[in-house]
Amino acid sequence: MSDVTEALESVLGERVRREPEILTAHQRDTWVLGELFDYRGEAGPLPLAVVEAESAHDVSETLRLCRAHGCPVVTYGGGSGVCGAIRVGERTVVLSTRKLAGLVSLDSGDLTARFRAGTFGGDAERRVREDGLTIGHWPQSIELSTVGGWVATRASGQYSTAYGNIEDLVLALEVVLPDGAVLRTRETPRAAAGPDLRQLFLGSEGTLGVVTEVTFSLRELPPFHFRQAFHFAGLHAAVEPVREILRAGWRPPVVRLYDASESNRHFGESCPEGRAMLILLHEGPEPAALAEANAVSELCRSRGGEEADAAAVDRWFDERNEVPGFRTFIEKGIMVDTIEVASTWQHVTQIYDAVTSALKEVPGILVATAHTSHAYRSGANLYFTFAVRPDEPGEMASVYAECWRRAMRATLANHGGIAHHHGIGRVRSGYLAEELGTAGVAVLRAVKHALDPDDLLNPGNLLPPQGPEAKG
Amino acid sequence: MSDVTEALESVLGERVRREPEILTAHQRDTWVLGELFDYRGEAGPLPLAVVEAESAHDVSETLRLCRAHGCPVVTYGGGSGVCGAIRVGERTVVLSTRKLAGLVSLDSGDLTARFRAGTFGGDAERRVREDGLTIGHWPQSIELSTVGGWVATRASGQYSTAYGNIEDLVLALEVVLPDGAVLRTRETPRAAAGPDLRQLFLGSEGTLGVVTEVTFSLRELPPFHFRQAFHFAGLHAAVEPVREILRAGWRPPVVRLYDASESNRHFGESCPEGRAMLILLHEGPEPAALAEANAVSELCRSRGGEEADAAAVDRWFDERNEVPGFRTFIEKGIMVDTIEVASTWQHVTQIYDAVTSALKEVPGILVATAHTSHAYRSGANLYFTFAVRPDEPGEMASVYAECWRRAMRATLANHGGIAHHHGIGRVRSGYLAEELGTAGVAVLRAVKHALDPDDLLNPGNLLPPQGPEAKG
Repeated sequence: MSDVTEALESVLGERVRREPEILTAHQRDTWVLGELFDYRGEAGPLPLAVVEAESAHDVSETLRLCRAHGCPVVTYGGGSGVCGAIRVGERTVVLSTRKLAGLVSLDSGDLTARFRAGTFGGDAERRVREDGLTIGHWPQSIELSTVGGWVATRASGQYSTAYGNIEDLVLALEVVLPDGAVLRTRETPRAAAGPDLRQLFLGSEGTLGVVTEVTFSLRELPPFHFRQAFHFAGLHAAVEPVREILRAGWRPPVVRLYDASESNRHFGESCPEGRAMLILLHEGPEPAALAEANAVSELCRSRGGEEADAAAVDRWFDERNEVPGFRTFIEKGIMVDTIEVASTWQHVTQIYDAVTSALKEVPGILVATAHTSHAYRSGANLYFTFAVRPDEPGEMASVYAECWRRAMRATLANHGGIAHHHGIGRVRSGYLAEELGTAGVAVLRAVKHALDPDDLLNPGNLLPPQGPEAKG
Repeated sequence: MSDVTEALESVLGERVRREPEILTAHQRDTWVLGELFDYRGEAGPLPLAVVEAESAHDVSETLRLCRAHGCPVVTYGGGSGVCGAIRVGERTVVLSTRKLAGLVSLDSGDLTARFRAGTFGGDAERRVREDGLTIGHWPQSIELSTVGGWVATRASGQYSTAYGNIEDLVLALEVVLPDGAVLRTRETPRAAAGPDLRQLFLGSEGTLGVVTEVTFSLRELPPFHFRQAFHFAGLHAAVEPVREILRAGWRPPVVRLYDASESNRHFGESCPEGRAMLILLHEGPEPAALAEANAVSELCRSRGGEEADAAAVDRWFDERNEVPGFRTFIEKGIMVDTIEVASTWQHVTQIYDAVTSALKEVPGILVATAHTSHAYRSGANLYFTFAVRPDEPGEMASVYAECWRRAMRATLANHGGIAHHHGIGRVRSGYLAEELGTAGVAVLRAVKHALDPDDLLNPGNLLPPQGPEAKG
């Protein structure tokens, strides 16, 4: 038993877990490359221990002891991340938020709910629904991801076009800092009291602190819902009407536009071959939602859209969180992954063309398609899916990296941002300097060094390895 | 001439200004205590020089040279801040953005406009209106404040309830860091690529970098407007309907509720004596704005609201940016100021009562009133106005400080946040540790030290003097 494990056990007792199956279950997140390494029996080191913290105090103690022993700490929520943010190295302690779960307080009048960070999204949403309220955050991973994970990764949900992304839904945070101090931001709707400290931890991916509580600003469950679908001559033909919907001031919670391949894959007979499907959800007070639905309908029809069977939308709602695991593909020699990027409107179709073309040139490529699922006044995201089966199974990792390299290069060359909502992790860290610029990486590194001078919180994640850009 | 002035002139030539009237005009912002000191002939030191930067490169050079000479730098935009964020100390160089003004680029399709930081708000708004667009940010200071100042102070505008505050309107920033490096954040509508670096500078009040360009995500000018006004039995009686308007999902851009004293002061005969006036603006696509206006009307009437003459709203719109200068009051021995705070809904009336009561106990108090002008799902701001005339003119500064102390204490004791949108400056820096907590101030101090190790950017502003909280 190592010194640090002994020290942790002396303070945290049975909250320190060392059973082999628990150590194995906390080695990594759901990144497909981690799945591949596992499948090949190259899973890498096990954590020294998994601390199941039950309080912010437990988290403080864990960080304090790990710091005293110079031992890295990786925080583990739902483990549903797909970018490799969690990948345990040598002599690492995993800090699990599994037992740091549940509602702390709910105020129905203030529309606030405070949850411990390890609460799973679905549990949190179901709890506030008991009071007729909603968080309004619907990532596909809602049953697999935790509210603390949402914050750490800067997550987006399927209803973001009306309700915003995680940074728009969080009222306050409790975070344990690398030195063990506990930061609680004030529960006020807005402040001009220096930089917004919540924002340091939204997207920090476990590198700057451990989120232990999340307070949401909730909404009442909307009294009315209306679903619509239209199909267009193709993704290019439909991007413009989507831009115009946003530009006119409408904000349907769900605005999802699929290219022809994905439309065919997801909607079958509801969308004619070669057409691109746009599905929409309107909700809120009935007169407002209906005014929006009518205006959107008129706009889509006048831009070549044809109304599709709304049953297609219902089916999407029923099946939206069902995704086949990466493992079933790996067993067939296929690497499958998704890549979400974002840009202003003028670059959306350029990036779509550039990325899909670049992917289609990869030998063994089976699928290179996209949809857009988050729209803003000034732009939108693109969410690519690719599948590739190299001739040689030994090339699965390198061909996978090549697909990512091509998608990142094509996005950057066309003025896109490399990550819309999955985060950076390890799959994108090599491209972060191009995303943020030399000065941006230098700022992030300076902040990291200021808060975590020994680089103990999730080392190797998010920030690229120290390179020439740090000299400036 | 000092070494640093010589060095600046050798590089920046005539952009370095040393005329006495220019030095005098850049000693301070519009904080009333600064006005008082000026009036008494105790204006304090003059800057060594005012650098009128014309490019980010000029800003870099200024910071580099000032750093080499260990000389503090204070950035000066419109000088309209009211919290004392600008107050020149010994051996200080002022960096003016006056000549760093104008539009850099506008993309009508993407709804983006990039302005140099020294562009005045009114000029920026008029420019985008030429293209049928709006920034949607209407601080009372719009003709006096710059777009860079909006970012540095985390400003709010009068239309925030629908359109958000400055942090919701800014797509990207260019910032010169204390070491002279230039950070340009990416022009994408959203990213999950580490913490949002824009947020470090929104609210940094000149302490972490110099904002040199601001890119806005614009809106189309709304096609339809509708104004409404209701009066209620008092501010307490009207807070609940305002909460319900937000809770139901409506977002009128303007939602302003005045207590009875302010209603009488601003609306005269349009609002019966003792009643509290609520004024609203609805705008957007006509059917949506009308649906909102109808629902709000029904809600207000069912909660004791009586419809007031909409001419009162028109008058507010006409006169909203006219404010008498502090100086005219000072000459009469009166200190006048405003204090904006925020809280969740359950504390709004508590804070209103506690702050106005605490102010009314100050000897010589003439006015202690409030309105709320920014509403959110989970709470609202309160904007207090006070006027006090001490018996002894020599006590004007101390009685002024006592008013602030009472307002801050009463706000904090009732779970409020001490600053909604004017910022911290010097008037609130002594309360920042209570706002952010020990850990929050430690984080902010660590970030400041990481980016500006020599404490040269606006020293003495925002952060409280180093105290016991920094030991932790």
